Amino acid sequence: MIGAPVMSAAEVTAFLDREFPQLLSGHGRFRIEAVGPMTARVRLVYDERHLRPGGTLSGPSMFGLCDVSLYIAILAQIGPVALAVTTNLNINFLRRPQAIDLIGACRLIKLGKRLAVGEVWVYPDGSDDPVAHATGTYSIPPR
Amino acid sequence: MIGAPVMSAAEVTAFLDREFPQLLSGHGRFRIEAVGPMTARVRLVYDERHLRPGGTLSGPSMFGLCDVSLYIAILAQIGPVALAVTTNLNINFLRRPQAIDLIGACRLIKLGKRLAVGEVWVYPDGSDDPVAHATGTYSIPPR
Amino acid sequence: MIGAPVMSAAEVTAFLDREFPQLLSGHGRFRIEAVGPMTARVRLVYDERHLRPGGTLSGPSMFGLCDVSLYIAILAQIGPVALAVTTNLNINFLRRPQAIDLIGACRLIKLGKRLAVGEVWVYPDGSDDPVAHATGTYSIPPR
Amino acid sequence: MIGAPVMSAAEVTAFLDREFPQLLSGHGRFRIEAVGPMTARVRLVYDERHLRPGGTLSGPSMFGLCDVSLYIAILAQIGPVALAVTTNLNINFLRRPQAIDLIGACRLIKLGKRLAVGEVWVYPDGSDDPVAHATGTYSIPPR
Repeated sequence: MIGAPVMSAAEVTAFLDREFPQLLSGHGRFRIEAVGPMTARVRLVYDERHLRPGGTLSGPSMFGLCDVSLYIAILAQIGPVALAVTTNLNINFLRRPQAIDLIGACRLIKLGKRLAVGEVWVYPDGSDDPVAHATGTYSIPPR
Repeated sequence: MIGAPVMSAAEVTAFLDREFPQLLSGHGRFRIEAVGPMTARVRLVYDERHLRPGGTLSGPSMFGLCDVSLYIAILAQIGPVALAVTTNLNINFLRRPQAIDLIGACRLIKLGKRLAVGEVWVYPDGSDDPVAHATGTYSIPPR
Repeated sequence: MIGAPVMSAAEVTAFLDREFPQLLSGHGRFRIEAVGPMTARVRLVYDERHLRPGGTLSGPSMFGLCDVSLYIAILAQIGPVALAVTTNLNINFLRRPQAIDLIGACRLIKLGKRLAVGEVWVYPDGSDDPVAHATGTYSIPPR
Repeated sequence: MIGAPVMSAAEVTAFLDREFPQLLSGHGRFRIEAVGPMTARVRLVYDERHLRPGGTLSGPSMFGLCDVSLYIAILAQIGPVALAVTTNLNINFLRRPQAIDLIGACRLIKLGKRLAVGEVWVYPDGSDDPVAHATGTYSIPPR
C-alpha cells in the first residue's frame, strides 16, 4: 500500500528554495503544482530562452522538467532525508512543444530502499496530447 | 564504408550560428572542437549557472551536450540538408562532474536514410573518466 | 483523434500465425487477449522454461512480451501492411515475476507515418502490481 | 584503477552451470569466450529457434545475450558473491542479424558498490559491423 506523501507541495518548494536555491529557477523556472501519493505535477514556466519551437533547444528543458518532476515526487513521498541522484533517464520526444508552459505529470512506478523508478508525461499547458514521455531511475542514499 | 564528413567543424559552426543562432549559446555555450567520419567532439564551456556539482542541475546541461553532439555529428556527415530531430535519448549518469568544461565525444553507430543512432561519452576536460554516457536516435527527414 | 483498430484480436492472431508461424509460439507462447484503439493486451503463458523466479532468465521473456505487445498494437491499428521493426526498447525491471502467466498491457503513445512509440506494463496475471515497464519504438516502412 | 577480474571464463562458466544450470542453455546457448578487466565476450550459438532473420523473433535473443554478457562481466570482476539483478536495459537494434552465431562484447562503464552500468555491442560472428547496442544497469546486493 502506498502511503500519503510526507511533504506538501509548499513544503517541498520551501525545502528546495532553501537547500538548492537554483534548482527551481535554473534551467527554466519550475513551479510545483501538486504532489500526491507517488505523484507530482510540475509546471515549467514558458521562457523564450528555453522553449524554442522549431529548434532542438527545447530538449534540455523537457529533460530538466522530467528530471525535476521525478525528484520532487520522490522528495514529497520520502521526505527531505538526503540527496537522491538520477542514474538513468530515457526520454522519447513525441512532437514539438508549442510556445507555452509545459506540465510534467510524474508517477513513481517503484519506490524501493535503494532505487526509485518513475515515469513522466510532458504536456503543453491545457492539452491532453503529450509532447514527451520519460522514465527515470534515482539512486536513494542509505538512510 | 563510411565516407568523410561533408562539412568541417568551422562550416558546421557557421551553419548553426546562421540557422539556429541560440543553439550553440543557449543551454550552455558549446564549441565544436572536431568532426570526423561519423564522429564529433564538442566542448561545453563551464558556466556556474549550468554546472553545479552537488546539485542535480548539471543533468540538463549534460543531456544538452549529448543531444547537440549527436546533431553535430549527423550534420557534419550528411550536410545541412534539413532539420533532423531527436526522437529518443537514453542517458546514464556515472558520477558527478567537476566544475570544469565538459567534452562530448560522439560516434554515430548507424546512419540510415531515416534514422541515425549514436553514442556520446561525456568527459570532464582533460580526464579519461566519463561522467555520463548516452545513446540517442535522430529522425532524418526525407531528402 | 484516434480511430478504431482496423483488425480484431482474432484477425491479428490469424495474420501472425500465417505470416510468422513462430512469433506467437517462439520465445514463450503468446495469446492476444484484446486489441483496442492504440492498445493491445497480450498474455505470455507460463512455461517453466521461460519464467524462472529467482533467476535472471525471465528478462528475455518479459522483453519478448513487451516487444510482441507493441507489434500487435501497431498491427491492429494500421493493418497488415508491411513489416515494422523494433528500433529501440528500454525496459525497467521492477520486481521479480511470480511463476504465473504474465500480461503485457500496451498503449501506443504516438503512431506517426514513420515511427510508432508505445509503452507496455507487465503484470502477473490477476495482479495490479507491475513487474516491468517498457517503452519502445518501431520503424514503420513506407506504405 | 581497474583491477583484474577475480574469476576466469572457465570459473564463471563452472559457477553458472552449478548455480543457474539453465542460464547458459536457456534462451539460446551461451558460451563465455573471454573475460578481462571490466569486460566479457560471450557467444550466442546459432539456433534456428532463436535467430530468425526477417522476423522480429531475434530481439529477445539479442536482449538475452546483452543481459547475460553484462552479468558475466560483473560476476568475473567482483566474484560469485551474490545475485545481481538487472534493473534497466536499453537496446538499439541497428540491422537484422544474419543466421550465424552472435558475439556480445561487453564493457563495464561503472562498477560501484550498489550499481553496475555497462554497454554491450552485438556482432555477427566474424563481423565488425554491429547489429545491436545496449546499455544496462545491474543492482548489486550489499556484500
